[in-house]
Amino acid sequence: MVPHLVTALNGPLLDLEKRMLDKTTEIERWFRLAWAESTPPFYSSVDVRNAGFKLAPVDTNLFPGGFNNLAPEMMPLAIQAAMSAVEKICPDAKSMVLIPERHTRNTFYLTNVARLASILKQTGLNVRLGSVSDEITEPTRFELPDGQSLLLEPLVRRGNRVGVEGLDPCAVLLNNDLSAGVPPILQNLDGQVLLPPLHAGWATRRKSAHFAAYNRVVDSFAQMLEIDPWLINPYFAHRNQLNFHERVGEEDLAAAVDEVLGKTREKYAQYGISEQPYVVVKADAGTYGMGIMTVKDASEVVGLNRKQRNKMSVVKEGLQVSDVIIQEGVHTFESIDDAVAEPVVYMIDRYVVGGFYRVHTGRGRDENLNAPGMHFVPLAFESPCNTPDCSDRPDAAVNRFYAYGVIARLAALAASHELETVPNVELAA
Amino acid sequence: MVPHLVTALNGPLLDLEKRMLDKTTEIERWFRLAWAESTPPFYSSVDVRNAGFKLAPVDTNLFPGGFNNLAPEMMPLAIQAAMSAVEKICPDAKSMVLIPERHTRNTFYLTNVARLASILKQTGLNVRLGSVSDEITEPTRFELPDGQSLLLEPLVRRGNRVGVEGLDPCAVLLNNDLSAGVPPILQNLDGQVLLPPLHAGWATRRKSAHFAAYNRVVDSFAQMLEIDPWLINPYFAHRNQLNFHERVGEEDLAAAVDEVLGKTREKYAQYGISEQPYVVVKADAGTYGMGIMTVKDASEVVGLNRKQRNKMSVVKEGLQVSDVIIQEGVHTFESIDDAVAEPVVYMIDRYVVGGFYRVHTGRGRDENLNAPGMHFVPLAFESPCNTPDCSDRPDAAVNRFYAYGVIARLAALAASHELETVPNVELAA
Repeated sequence: MVPHLVTALNGPLLDLEKRMLDKTTEIERWFRLAWAESTPPFYSSVDVRNAGFKLAPVDTNLFPGGFNNLAPEMMPLAIQAAMSAVEKICPDAKSMVLIPERHTRNTFYLTNVARLASILKQTGLNVRLGSVSDEITEPTRFELPDGQSLLLEPLVRRGNRVGVEGLDPCAVLLNNDLSAGVPPILQNLDGQVLLPPLHAGWATRRKSAHFAAYNRVVDSFAQMLEIDPWLINPYFAHRNQLNFHERVGEEDLAAAVDEVLGKTREKYAQYGISEQPYVVVKADAGTYGMGIMTVKDASEVVGLNRKQRNKMSVVKEGLQVSDVIIQEGVHTFESIDDAVAEPVVYMIDRYVVGGFYRVHTGRGRDENLNAPGMHFVPLAFESPCNTPDCSDRPDAAVNRFYAYGVIARLAALAASHELETVPNVELAA
Repeated sequence: MVPHLVTALNGPLLDLEKRMLDKTTEIERWFRLAWAESTPPFYSSVDVRNAGFKLAPVDTNLFPGGFNNLAPEMMPLAIQAAMSAVEKICPDAKSMVLIPERHTRNTFYLTNVARLASILKQTGLNVRLGSVSDEITEPTRFELPDGQSLLLEPLVRRGNRVGVEGLDPCAVLLNNDLSAGVPPILQNLDGQVLLPPLHAGWATRRKSAHFAAYNRVVDSFAQMLEIDPWLINPYFAHRNQLNFHERVGEEDLAAAVDEVLGKTREKYAQYGISEQPYVVVKADAGTYGMGIMTVKDASEVVGLNRKQRNKMSVVKEGLQVSDVIIQEGVHTFESIDDAVAEPVVYMIDRYVVGGFYRVHTGRGRDENLNAPGMHFVPLAFESPCNTPDCSDRPDAAVNRFYAYGVIARLAALAASHELETVPNVELAA
């Protein structure tokens, strides 16, 4: 079932969805031409927000976890998409080493790794798991709640290549976002296909670069669809070299917040939206919902107390935050049984292969649903994202999922443009 | 549900299916490498026979009808596969004209055309239907049983291109098998992508060339899988320049029947199969189950009576039969509720996108299930063909469908080799 919009503000969104439905053929051709010029990320997931009056991505993950949250019925699509990706990237590959995140105690995450490995196996790859965790010093088997088990082996380096004991793979797939920097074992590799490239990791990647690319993608798409790009694009600004602990850059940050809030207010006025605008301040290189703050007025970022400063200054793996993105907040107006629901769309190559809702009770519409320690309930999309039905209502499940898939593909396209440029940032750990 | 084998002879097939399951990774890599060297047909369907001791294709259709028989749940796979095909063949295509069969009274067939058109539309193509039927002299709307309607327009020629009124398409998709020859309107086209190429039509295509290509494909595959190729390959011979009416070539045909029966008998002896071998004599360029004869002894093809000769000498659209293929009969040992069931597997590009069973009551295991005037009941495969489950039994639904998909892909690969050579046959109508 699709969570129902609980807002009366669904006029503009229905218009947008209806326009997408009317133009599916043009949209698909637009994507076909766009992908002919860009290499899609091997895989990605996109957090989409549905505000009733606006539908936009708020985060694009190039090391998606959560494949285990997709409906089992989506596996054939995922396998077919992975076949297409592997064929294109490493057509003669016989084997692949998948590098998971370090946190091996999270059986939920390991179930995602198992799902990914089984998808890849079905593309004709002998898949083994090479861990960069200090805890994995020998092949270690983990039992999963669903009865499967997973063998993690230490990643080993041989010359300029990595592998596991007895296997020198053709390709290496990162499911580790490199938040802690690029481990030495992965530096200066040569002759192996590394997916995605190292600069897709948070050691170098910047959200602001992603959303700058998204701006360009959306401008072209919105022109084709003849819509206001704002309907699918959150405003943003970014600021560098802040120091939350030492209160360096607070005023500058406040100015950026004011700028984004001001532009958003204008749009709200234009569309007669009575909600209160807000922005989300997040680490530009952050992940996992850490280093995030919801702000409704610029004054809130000035004179933060110690707790707030601590919260903002560190993301995953202890990384210090000095660069932030100030993003227009997109309200979450989708809910199910009074619980707020945020859709996440999964892609392999250029294909949408499914998605799920993060369903969370007891949180506000304008709060982040991916906060640390948060336990959401995944609710798999019940139908695929590539079968819109013009004869049905624009907000019917297949049509809403189609719209989500379109937005997610725009974000994936932005990511592909983003990755075409290697950022000028030191890759060392 | 999967029809259950009603034979005790399932030992060898279970072995074969088990071996396929054990080697899915190797099989998928084998296909990946094979497709890297060959262009798959745009689409195809393969009639597979499951004899309990043997699993083999008996016919490969390059103009598949019956997409409407696939489960609706398979549409996302079909759309994704078609996206991949279109992207590869005509990446910037904006529009496509689909040329259906002439028989416009068959709403069952027209429902297939509607399904195909909707799949193609979802790849970003503006699809219109250009008919070569004499009856379609102006745009004509046909109502379909499911409430949809279909607009057939006359195919028009402009210079060396074809289209419909007001549309000069980038690509033309044939869903017409050209049994009656290549109509002049399709001859000497230039500058348009024609899918599949004209020589895929029965005006030039020969089953014997297809199965000769299949022999080569299977030899390589069987070597990889370490199986006897016969387990997935029917013997065949072929004979040209027969004249059934004038009884020219009867003895020669009898010798070919004897040869195929003899080789089959040896294999039956080797595997301890107690069934009676038989061969199927069919038009080498035939289709639609016409011009087909089941034979258990060479003497049966000598001294045919008038009725039998008439039956053999004409296929669809009145085409005379002079060339025949003599194919080892593969028993149909699958049934459901006592009705014989023959699987048909559908592919778009190199991807299996679903399948269905032709279920027929009141016919024998060794009879053709696609005979003229036959009314079969389609039973859609309930699960996809690309998600084998090693933890389940080899004859579990997903695993049996996987095996069918493997056999069908081998046949599609043979077709792609077959189409690489343009046969030296006059293309004129």
